Amino acid sequence: MQKKKLEVCVSPLLLPLYDLTNSVVVVIDIFRATTSICYGIANGAKAIIPVATVEECLQRKNDSCLVAAERDGRIVEGFDFGNSPFAYTKEKVAGKTVVLTTTNGTYAVSESRKTAYEIIIGSFLNLDAVITYLKNHDKDVLLLCSGWKNKANIEDTLFAGAIVEQLSEEEYEFDDAAYFSKDIYQVAKPDLKAYTSKASHGKRMQRLNLEKDIEFCLNVNLIKEIPVLRGEELVALSTALA
Amino acid sequence: MQKKKLEVCVSPLLLPLYDLTNSVVVVIDIFRATTSICYGIANGAKAIIPVATVEECLQRKNDSCLVAAERDGRIVEGFDFGNSPFAYTKEKVAGKTVVLTTTNGTYAVSESRKTAYEIIIGSFLNLDAVITYLKNHDKDVLLLCSGWKNKANIEDTLFAGAIVEQLSEEEYEFDDAAYFSKDIYQVAKPDLKAYTSKASHGKRMQRLNLEKDIEFCLNVNLIKEIPVLRGEELVALSTALA
Repeated sequence: MQKKKLEVCVSPLLLPLYDLTNSVVVVIDIFRATTSICYGIANGAKAIIPVATVEECLQRKNDSCLVAAERDGRIVEGFDFGNSPFAYTKEKVAGKTVVLTTTNGTYAVSESRKTAYEIIIGSFLNLDAVITYLKNHDKDVLLLCSGWKNKANIEDTLFAGAIVEQLSEEEYEFDDAAYFSKDIYQVAKPDLKAYTSKASHGKRMQRLNLEKDIEFCLNVNLIKEIPVLRGEELVALSTALA
Repeated sequence: MQKKKLEVCVSPLLLPLYDLTNSVVVVIDIFRATTSICYGIANGAKAIIPVATVEECLQRKNDSCLVAAERDGRIVEGFDFGNSPFAYTKEKVAGKTVVLTTTNGTYAVSESRKTAYEIIIGSFLNLDAVITYLKNHDKDVLLLCSGWKNKANIEDTLFAGAIVEQLSEEEYEFDDAAYFSKDIYQVAKPDLKAYTSKASHGKRMQRLNLEKDIEFCLNVNLIKEIPVLRGEELVALSTALA
């Protein structure tokens, strides 16, 4: 039997190098977009719509939509909220649609959307759920790190490694970045908080007093839900399949 | 005192994201371009001229020049040789100028040339020489991995980590990729050959019966010479400074 491909793309700028037509793409932006999206969907948001620009986000503000915009770690003025996971609680998002734009993560979704077989959203919060989903799928896998302004970053790369660690070389053909991501994760695993505190975006968030967000983003397996892209909307996979 | 920057760029495609005006760029293409360039310069080649295309390389063939071209791991037909380090011995290159084009490494040189403060060539062969040079310099450092067809690869990333390991955080501000490259190197260090045998280009070279090239490329501190770009030519740093 031919092996499935398992690839790690460390920056959205490198995405055109990959053939995604047969791939499930897992979009990763640990601090904080994909963590917040996972949390929001698990808390009953009807849909989260990632858009590329602040302007597009603002245009879609209406009574039935919340709008959320983050740039450089801060909420953009005039928006309901940014991408702190604490803004995506049941009280705030259940039954609602959220239109969201962030510095890194939403760009990765819009770029991969052009050709991917399917797009799902990964974070430590739903790590095991994502792994189980991939294992039960016959498709190739591309783990897409959003990075920071298109540079490779620590937290997304090591999270990719956390997925690689649970997938077998008998079933998957690993690319180089899959191998080294796995090693980075294994170095980081004993103390994720200490390891990611070296990350430039971790330091940036500390300066903005967002330590609680960082800690929350490193919670492993808090939820079972996987957001999946259907058209332009991220919805709960369980709903999408129903 | 302000710290110097220490950055690792894991693919030449990401190079436009970095400001190189105050940076010494170390170009890295372990299998095999930068290893061969270091070896050729140490063996007395007068100059090695990296060019981007096979056509440009062929146009420069004349009595005083050797031409070398590699694509996808093989010597291009009609050329004196490719980028096996064994083609860069004293007997073959001493006193000669070599015009060279390769799949990955020469592209990285031509891209960084546009804005870098200075460009030098790194490989395991001259690892300590490169580290000493950087330490004695007051400039920022960018370690530029050539990768494989612009994807991040194992051997270049871990070599970047071998340099990072010897530079101090007191003196340098590390970027995220510097941190994780260092960790990859530390995992790989006890057995570089075993580690790099997982690399996709390592596997490709094994299929082409180039195991001896791989072993040679992993020789640490065989030479003391550093190739440096002066105009369009890579020459020995000692000659350039004389």
